[in-house]
Amino acid sequence: MNLIEETMCAIKPLDSEAAKHAGMRLDSLTKPLGSLGNLEEIVQRYAAVRRDPQASFRRGALTVFVADHGVADAGVSAYPKAVTVEMLRNIALGGAAISVLARHFGFDLLVTDVGVETDTSAEVLPAVRYRRIGPGTRNFLEGSAMSPEQARKAIDAGIEAANHAVSRGATLIGIGEMGIANSTAAAAVLAAITGIEPARLAGRGTGIDDAAMRRKVGVIEDALKLHQHSLRDGLGTLASVGGFEIGAMAGVCLAGAAASVPVVADGFIATAAAALADRIRPGLRDYLFFGHCSAEGGHALVLETLWVRPILQLNMRLGEGTGAALAMNLIQSALALFHQMATFSGAGVSGPIK
Amino acid sequence: MNLIEETMCAIKPLDSEAAKHAGMRLDSLTKPLGSLGNLEEIVQRYAAVRRDPQASFRRGALTVFVADHGVADAGVSAYPKAVTVEMLRNIALGGAAISVLARHFGFDLLVTDVGVETDTSAEVLPAVRYRRIGPGTRNFLEGSAMSPEQARKAIDAGIEAANHAVSRGATLIGIGEMGIANSTAAAAVLAAITGIEPARLAGRGTGIDDAAMRRKVGVIEDALKLHQHSLRDGLGTLASVGGFEIGAMAGVCLAGAAASVPVVADGFIATAAAALADRIRPGLRDYLFFGHCSAEGGHALVLETLWVRPILQLNMRLGEGTGAALAMNLIQSALALFHQMATFSGAGVSGPIK
Repeated sequence: MNLIEETMCAIKPLDSEAAKHAGMRLDSLTKPLGSLGNLEEIVQRYAAVRRDPQASFRRGALTVFVADHGVADAGVSAYPKAVTVEMLRNIALGGAAISVLARHFGFDLLVTDVGVETDTSAEVLPAVRYRRIGPGTRNFLEGSAMSPEQARKAIDAGIEAANHAVSRGATLIGIGEMGIANSTAAAAVLAAITGIEPARLAGRGTGIDDAAMRRKVGVIEDALKLHQHSLRDGLGTLASVGGFEIGAMAGVCLAGAAASVPVVADGFIATAAAALADRIRPGLRDYLFFGHCSAEGGHALVLETLWVRPILQLNMRLGEGTGAALAMNLIQSALALFHQMATFSGAGVSGPIK
Repeated sequence: MNLIEETMCAIKPLDSEAAKHAGMRLDSLTKPLGSLGNLEEIVQRYAAVRRDPQASFRRGALTVFVADHGVADAGVSAYPKAVTVEMLRNIALGGAAISVLARHFGFDLLVTDVGVETDTSAEVLPAVRYRRIGPGTRNFLEGSAMSPEQARKAIDAGIEAANHAVSRGATLIGIGEMGIANSTAAAAVLAAITGIEPARLAGRGTGIDDAAMRRKVGVIEDALKLHQHSLRDGLGTLASVGGFEIGAMAGVCLAGAAASVPVVADGFIATAAAALADRIRPGLRDYLFFGHCSAEGGHALVLETLWVRPILQLNMRLGEGTGAALAMNLIQSALALFHQMATFSGAGVSGPIK
């Protein structure tokens, strides 16, 4: 059995008893019934995934994967490809948005190079892990983005990162990414999985103009035609039109479920990974939180199609795991309320009038 | 000149130059232009209110006001009136939701009794301030909820609490409340100010049934008729159908603007106070943040009518300042990004393709 199969076999069902017990405690706390709204659902889902009616929290970890994309050569991004490695350095040196949030919230930040064009492994970048599957994917207009073996390796890289985070005590893991042109790959993956037309999925990414936008939609349409016979399953979709970081984030989703650790998806590109994980292992989305609804392309439509509700709506479209980090902070606040609020009987507060 | 007039005279215009400078720095940070979405607006509004292009943050304070309401006697709440004082004790002793969040986020918590039926000033309740304007308001179906002088005193109590918070270093202040039946008073205030019909404003509060709901709408309609000649200005509206804690929260809004400190409104009842402050001093809403859209009654409709956008939408309806606290935490995160992210030039990251 390989790592992906092993991981899938380790996934236990959600613990509805734990969720129910957490719900009973929520109802005993000094507040009107249900008045914490979505925070109550969050606590119950956390308990169900953790298989822990106490919903105990140890620490949060952010796993961020960085890779390049051959399809950048098709002129689908507002920024040059060099920005991928430049941002890898910026993340590692603490200046990127996700670095600031990880520090601010006290979350571990695990950054993995899964295939940036420029190899930085000889530089001294603090805390970057190297699991380079290649120097970026191939342009998926000219063939598969990656080989089936590379697709498996990408998912393995995510599983390993998640297992590492869990071994360091994480009970909540966020996924994020950086990779110039990866909103094109993510839109292609999501079009293949959901059947939504590329024109409704593609967004402005880092800020492309109308001409580039038409090009981007055309690229996705062409790719879906070219690879139509390989898009029937998750691994085939990943290999055909995906990216190394998208595969890795899907791996984190699978490994989180296997370790009973909820994973928090970030925006559009992380949602493509979550949808892939759910395609590989149906029902997996129930083990995840969707951190926010991004302003990128058809993210709101995708979330609706997947029947999932995002925690935050802040019109962000930055990626890197920033929306996931903010949502993880909110989840932690919900858990603090659950753990620390007094009960009606404990505080001597009267219940409703009968 | 009395305290309210003095406070209003001290309000300076918003500093659009500070907002502009903050915007220029936001555009220089290593992220696609505008990709932090609403967080960028938050930083700019904070800079404009603070009159500080650096948008520096010292600390957050939560000001929570507790009072009873004569209209509770009309059977408009699911909980007995005794819950107000019981929850005052619970907040003071650290078991209420707002106590947990203040501790968790490291915000000062300033609780003021502005008119609870039971006087607890002889008990040893840590950190509760007493500015008791009366043992609760009168039932506003039988006359004004309070005298004009009491209305001024309620606002004064809020101004004093805000000034106290500012003197302790607060650069961001949240407002919250507790008071059985105060969603009825808030709905009456909001109906008077916005012209929205009571049936579209009134909500389930702490969880009333259909019969109580019809009663609640009837009570508000009757009150608006009874007091129709006193609802033309903010102070008259507060005195006729308001509450001591609603007046106090309006006072915090005014004093925050005067001290160049942004105030974060909580849910339905705090929004009634914010709307009152904006009625007393037109344009005041621009100095405020609206923390969340509550699930209570017509809160979403009110926010739309006031042309303001809430930061969070979590279907919460707990009050106490809980939504404000969560939003303050998010504002603080936005400021951390603003202060700590690297610039394109500083981090050696390429800009967009020309």
